[in-house]
Amino acid sequence: MIDLHLIGIGTGNPDHLTRAAIAAMNAADLILLPRKGRAKSDLIDLRREICAQVLTGATRIVEFDLPVRDPVAAYRDAVDRWHDAIAEVWAAQIAAHLPGGGRLGLLVWGDPSLYDSTLRIADRLRARGMAIRVHVEPGITSLQALTAAHAIPLNTLAAPVLITTGRRLRAEGWPPAIDTIAVMLDGGCAFETLAPDDLVIWWGAYLGMPHQALIAGPLALVADDIVRTRAALRDRHGWIMDIYVLRRSRGRL
Amino acid sequence: MIDLHLIGIGTGNPDHLTRAAIAAMNAADLILLPRKGRAKSDLIDLRREICAQVLTGATRIVEFDLPVRDPVAAYRDAVDRWHDAIAEVWAAQIAAHLPGGGRLGLLVWGDPSLYDSTLRIADRLRARGMAIRVHVEPGITSLQALTAAHAIPLNTLAAPVLITTGRRLRAEGWPPAIDTIAVMLDGGCAFETLAPDDLVIWWGAYLGMPHQALIAGPLALVADDIVRTRAALRDRHGWIMDIYVLRRSRGRL
Ligand SMILES: C[S@@+](CC[C@H](N)C(=O)[O-])C[C@H]1O[C@@H](n2cnc3c(N)ncnc32)[C@H](O)[C@@H]1O
Ligand SMILES: C[S@@+](CC[C@H](N)C(=O)[O-])C[C@H]1O[C@@H](n2cnc3c(N)ncnc32)[C@H](O)[C@@H]1O
Repeated sequence: MIDLHLIGIGTGNPDHLTRAAIAAMNAADLILLPRKGRAKSDLIDLRREICAQVLTGATRIVEFDLPVRDPVAAYRDAVDRWHDAIAEVWAAQIAAHLPGGGRLGLLVWGDPSLYDSTLRIADRLRARGMAIRVHVEPGITSLQALTAAHAIPLNTLAAPVLITTGRRLRAEGWPPAIDTIAVMLDGGCAFETLAPDDLVIWWGAYLGMPHQALIAGPLALVADDIVRTRAALRDRHGWIMDIYVLRRSRGRL
Repeated sequence: MIDLHLIGIGTGNPDHLTRAAIAAMNAADLILLPRKGRAKSDLIDLRREICAQVLTGATRIVEFDLPVRDPVAAYRDAVDRWHDAIAEVWAAQIAAHLPGGGRLGLLVWGDPSLYDSTLRIADRLRARGMAIRVHVEPGITSLQALTAAHAIPLNTLAAPVLITTGRRLRAEGWPPAIDTIAVMLDGGCAFETLAPDDLVIWWGAYLGMPHQALIAGPLALVADDIVRTRAALRDRHGWIMDIYVLRRSRGRL
């Protein structure tokens, strides 16, 4: 039997680790760390650093190369095949390093519930007939790192919030009957497709990390600054992760 | 100058505290703990317990009685007046215990960004002319405690999620073009107002606490069980906090 612990680690600030996450890491027999290629080497470095900071016992750490997603196939197919490939690699690592079963820890960026495929990949192991129990330790999401850094509430008083992706915002525009949206997984700057009047944005990149960047203000005034800053930061670091909250101001700009 | 630290403490499990939250508590000169009346005494007990577990230095703890919201006035007015009254009480506590300024810590249930008024009350202090800087430490939300306990993703692949309230769900029904909704602040069982076919629910109450309760399944099959369990638990404990995720199954029930 494999006890698979998906452990949310926050999105860059090791102090966002919870006590439960630290305990789960230390209780694991094995922690698998994915290597994602040179461009995102900061991310494996951070995971190594977290392990170095918090592990006190006999937990083994094994690094493995994460399969790469087909960049040309249709999105859905490419993602499906990619998840299959990752499940395959996990299974091989488990067979090699935990042949008699045990506790396997995986460090998940942010919280395992939010735009993360680890739970779906774990389902594939179960579907292949592996005896596996899945446990989740929540972690601070990038959305919480964003609202904390700007010291803003996510919702207005008792009002709903839509969490969506750059792709959906581009395709569908501003959703009906909603004042606040949070946008993740935006490969570009989907906010540029909206009429900016009456919108306020709170934007953040590399949240929790030393090179965290924040910009906020009426969208009409700060959109260009965000577009330029984002491009410059991506050039400098070789990759970027950013997220933003947009709110209709209803004249309260 | 007052440095006000709003510290997310999670929603019942002291192990959901982050290292940053623990550090902020210890760095505070004063922590104010609100007493909310007899019915919810579990909640102040938990805050006392958290302080006892994590404080190692000279931080002072002062308890105060939280004003009570007018139960008959119109919702919006009642909430506005209630927040004014809380700001007043904070100001009095600050004048009494931090007359020369310093670091004030407030322990916020879950994450300070999500359906919480602490940031709005802090704005009122600023509006009264108090010199105040606000800092936020994120905390694990009840929504993350729910998805972790059920070991489920919040979103389906790259799809949006609406976070809303029981009141809004009752008033507006299922939102257009969305497959997943998370419902908080539901004084009743607003899911009963939906046509249950094709919906799956993951429900949780007292998440993170010893008496945590979980129910999941097709809404048509488990709705009655949730309604009965919720009523019984509320009778037993004198109060209840619950939250749920609903997902259209699109035939995958
Ligand atoms: C695959 S999702 C993973 C989200 C993660 N599970 C979480 O809880 O935040 C990646 C997206 O999260 C956001 N993100 C993650 N980490 C971030 C960070 N440190 N700064 C800004 N955005 C971040 C970006 O929108 C990015 O496109
Ligand atoms: C005023 S809001 C505060 C939310 C909090 N800031 C958070 O991050 O979860 C209170 C609502 O949160 C949800 N909630 C908070 N704690 C909970 C718990 N331990 N179990 C279940 N639901 C909870 C319920 O929906 C409740 O009505």
